Amino acid sequence: MTDTMNRSHTTQPDLDPADGARALELDRQYVFHSWSAQGALAPFVIAGAAGCDVWTYDGERYLDFSSQLVNTNIGHSHPKVVAAIQHQAAELATVAPAHANLVRGEAARRIVEKAGPGFAKVFFTNGGADAIENAIRMARLTTRKHKVLSTFRSYHGNTGAAIAATGDWRRMPNEYAWGHLRVFGPFLYRSEFHATTEQEECQRALQHLERTIQAEGPDTIAAIVLESVPGTAGIFSPPAGYLAGVRAICDRYGIVWIADEVMAGFGRTGEWFAWQGEAVNPEGVVPDLIAFAKGVNSGYVPVGGVVISPDIAAAFDERVFPGGLTYSGHPLAMASIVASIDAMTDEGIVENAKMIGEKHLGPGLRALAEKHEMIGEVRGLGVFWALDLVTDRATREPVPAAVIGKLKAELMKRHVLPFAADNRIHVVPPCIVTPEEVERALVAYDEAFAAVAAG
Amino acid sequence: MTDTMNRSHTTQPDLDPADGARALELDRQYVFHSWSAQGALAPFVIAGAAGCDVWTYDGERYLDFSSQLVNTNIGHSHPKVVAAIQHQAAELATVAPAHANLVRGEAARRIVEKAGPGFAKVFFTNGGADAIENAIRMARLTTRKHKVLSTFRSYHGNTGAAIAATGDWRRMPNEYAWGHLRVFGPFLYRSEFHATTEQEECQRALQHLERTIQAEGPDTIAAIVLESVPGTAGIFSPPAGYLAGVRAICDRYGIVWIADEVMAGFGRTGEWFAWQGEAVNPEGVVPDLIAFAKGVNSGYVPVGGVVISPDIAAAFDERVFPGGLTYSGHPLAMASIVASIDAMTDEGIVENAKMIGEKHLGPGLRALAEKHEMIGEVRGLGVFWALDLVTDRATREPVPAAVIGKLKAELMKRHVLPFAADNRIHVVPPCIVTPEEVERALVAYDEAFAAVAAG
Ligand SMILES: Cc1ncc(COP(=O)(O)O)c(C=O)c1O
Ligand SMILES: Cc1ncc(COP(=O)(O)O)c(C=O)c1O
Repeated sequence: MTDTMNRSHTTQPDLDPADGARALELDRQYVFHSWSAQGALAPFVIAGAAGCDVWTYDGERYLDFSSQLVNTNIGHSHPKVVAAIQHQAAELATVAPAHANLVRGEAARRIVEKAGPGFAKVFFTNGGADAIENAIRMARLTTRKHKVLSTFRSYHGNTGAAIAATGDWRRMPNEYAWGHLRVFGPFLYRSEFHATTEQEECQRALQHLERTIQAEGPDTIAAIVLESVPGTAGIFSPPAGYLAGVRAICDRYGIVWIADEVMAGFGRTGEWFAWQGEAVNPEGVVPDLIAFAKGVNSGYVPVGGVVISPDIAAAFDERVFPGGLTYSGHPLAMASIVASIDAMTDEGIVENAKMIGEKHLGPGLRALAEKHEMIGEVRGLGVFWALDLVTDRATREPVPAAVIGKLKAELMKRHVLPFAADNRIHVVPPCIVTPEEVERALVAYDEAFAAVAAG
Repeated sequence: MTDTMNRSHTTQPDLDPADGARALELDRQYVFHSWSAQGALAPFVIAGAAGCDVWTYDGERYLDFSSQLVNTNIGHSHPKVVAAIQHQAAELATVAPAHANLVRGEAARRIVEKAGPGFAKVFFTNGGADAIENAIRMARLTTRKHKVLSTFRSYHGNTGAAIAATGDWRRMPNEYAWGHLRVFGPFLYRSEFHATTEQEECQRALQHLERTIQAEGPDTIAAIVLESVPGTAGIFSPPAGYLAGVRAICDRYGIVWIADEVMAGFGRTGEWFAWQGEAVNPEGVVPDLIAFAKGVNSGYVPVGGVVISPDIAAAFDERVFPGGLTYSGHPLAMASIVASIDAMTDEGIVENAKMIGEKHLGPGLRALAEKHEMIGEVRGLGVFWALDLVTDRATREPVPAAVIGKLKAELMKRHVLPFAADNRIHVVPPCIVTPEEVERALVAYDEAFAAVAAG
């Protein structure tokens, strides 16, 4: 763990506040932003970053408890990953996917090894959405069925099939793919099944899933796409038994289980893949396909992909796989994956995430909930936590958007970069976060809740 | 142009043939490839590359007349782009798209300036497919219509909507999006309209387009997606008047014209954007949205995007744009765009592509066609050329796949890396290619055609 703590690379370079003004001006004039109305945006300008810190051109430093979009698992500017990118850029930045190159094979081998014996090959994409697209494609082609089942509380990406598989509001204006249907998944705090225990929630969610499959027609359903631990939707681990139940249903009806590990994978839950964790999957069942992105290289170079079971990989030995993209297996991205997985392994970064969750972040956030009425539930594991904020603990009525706005402002004042979603604050620092940084952030969260409650 | 010719950065590093064997072994074991049956692949292993050369671990050098997937417009390992990536990797590799950063604004400004006064903002994606996805999304949301019209001879990417917009065989196993229809575009050499002149082809293609729109219902059609110069489908410039006719039809029926410049843009045709060229678009009409990727940074870092007209950008000032992705406006990609556009501008690389097309590649390929019966038509401009190969010049019957296989092998023997598609060889070197390199390649093509004809 010592290397992780060594932040000699965090030296802040010379900064010119005029560059911050210029960045904002150019942004407002020329940059079109995701998921927003463009008119009233006032984006936060980031000049540089290292470890768990980001800073502005005014030299102000912030503790990054967002990991940006929950992707910088290894922290910012990890020296080994930076060096690997620099080296590869000079050697060979890009080749066509049809050719081979050494670093691509090295990256694929590492990912398959972390996924374990249930997996054989990797198909690389540019990010999470196209990982989901290609996983769905593999499922449809190997099952020769067409429908894709997912859950309402989910996000799977913004491209045609990925957005149709998505459960949240982002799907609604974008639903131009057919053959997608969604069910409710287990989530006891806001149960759709009138359940009062995790066990009941689990049984009822599985029953609802199986009844839907039967009623839709099992011979029409190619895949079930599930975030192993749903992320943007609120960070809720499936109850014990749920994934085993999904596996059994998939086996019963010839359905491919696609584990979306884009956000949950590569250390976030304190495991290489969330489905490998004892708490998430006590029976140790194994999915057929894993979609990944984000944490695989902490997003230093855009990349994602699908880890493929031996059976599904072999189904395309003789038959053409009809999918591809210009930057599949891009050497620069591959070099960043190799360096990132090696550094995470050597420096015990996944283990750190687990330890932080068990010893610091979990207990610390639960202590906050004791003090602040507004925190209805604390959920999570590893460095993947949500505070579900309510106006009333009995009714669990979500706090209005204005409260979240105020909380974000109070956290920024205290130099913590927050992650907010709906009525929740997600506490999602890099996996390298130290107990001391957690301590500092907990003080900021505590003060911010107090300020909002007071004002 | 002098800088372009300076290949001091092409020094070949120490190479170990064992690494080539290892690359192949890892590839075959762990890497799942695009658009292929996996069983019988024997990929070419690339160790490194610079300028127009790539080399193997055995130290064999090849002239890259494929530009990989027609993306390395600036050549391989351009020192200024490499340096920009190295610098940015150390400073700030990734930030969330919601935040602002200086290099993103600088990249967006340059792209808008190259696109000209008809454009206001840029939405960044990871590649070409998701550029098309988001352009379609913008068109649907601003027109409040749903259908998307494209051409049969086209490729627009492998994600849900992009693959449904695609005309070629790659769509067929993947057609799970609704609201897509396709028409025939103008292509005189293989006319669908029984036309004998370019003018007739143009008129009939426009009539077919307009009649299809009328019959489908103009109030149902949101967008027309067109490769300004279709690439993978065979590199055929639209006849004079076609794009102006498309613009008029779009205006008449309230349809958004999406120019797919993923392959044709950023120098390939000897222009920044193919639609800006006198030969392609003599009337100088302007599309509403431009999808780009590949040449914008030669693919050194995965990136793409949409250049947006002022009207469409403004439509999302008050209204939420429901699209986005984790790596939109990724700093590392942005730095490579800034360096690449600046180097292409300073070194006259786009002008070089135009000159090479007019003075060397065009005349040289036409001279080959004089000698080799098999070459049915030579088409192209800039560094974007196709040799349409036929068994009979009268019937224009395409040569069988085996002939293309032999040609590729003969070209590899002569150390030219070719690009083949269907019955065609595409001659698509980097935009920095020199007359001397063109000369060497022409000798290889000449010999390869002779060898195949003889054998
Ligand atoms: C679980 C999950 N799947 C897929 C995606 C899509 O990934 P990308 O934004 O790289 O397309 C995300 C992004 O947040 C995600 O959280
Ligand atoms: C014209 C065109 N559009 C879109 C694409 C898709 O781009 P990408 O492979 O980056 O998704 C391509 C790729 O070759 C293309 O040639």
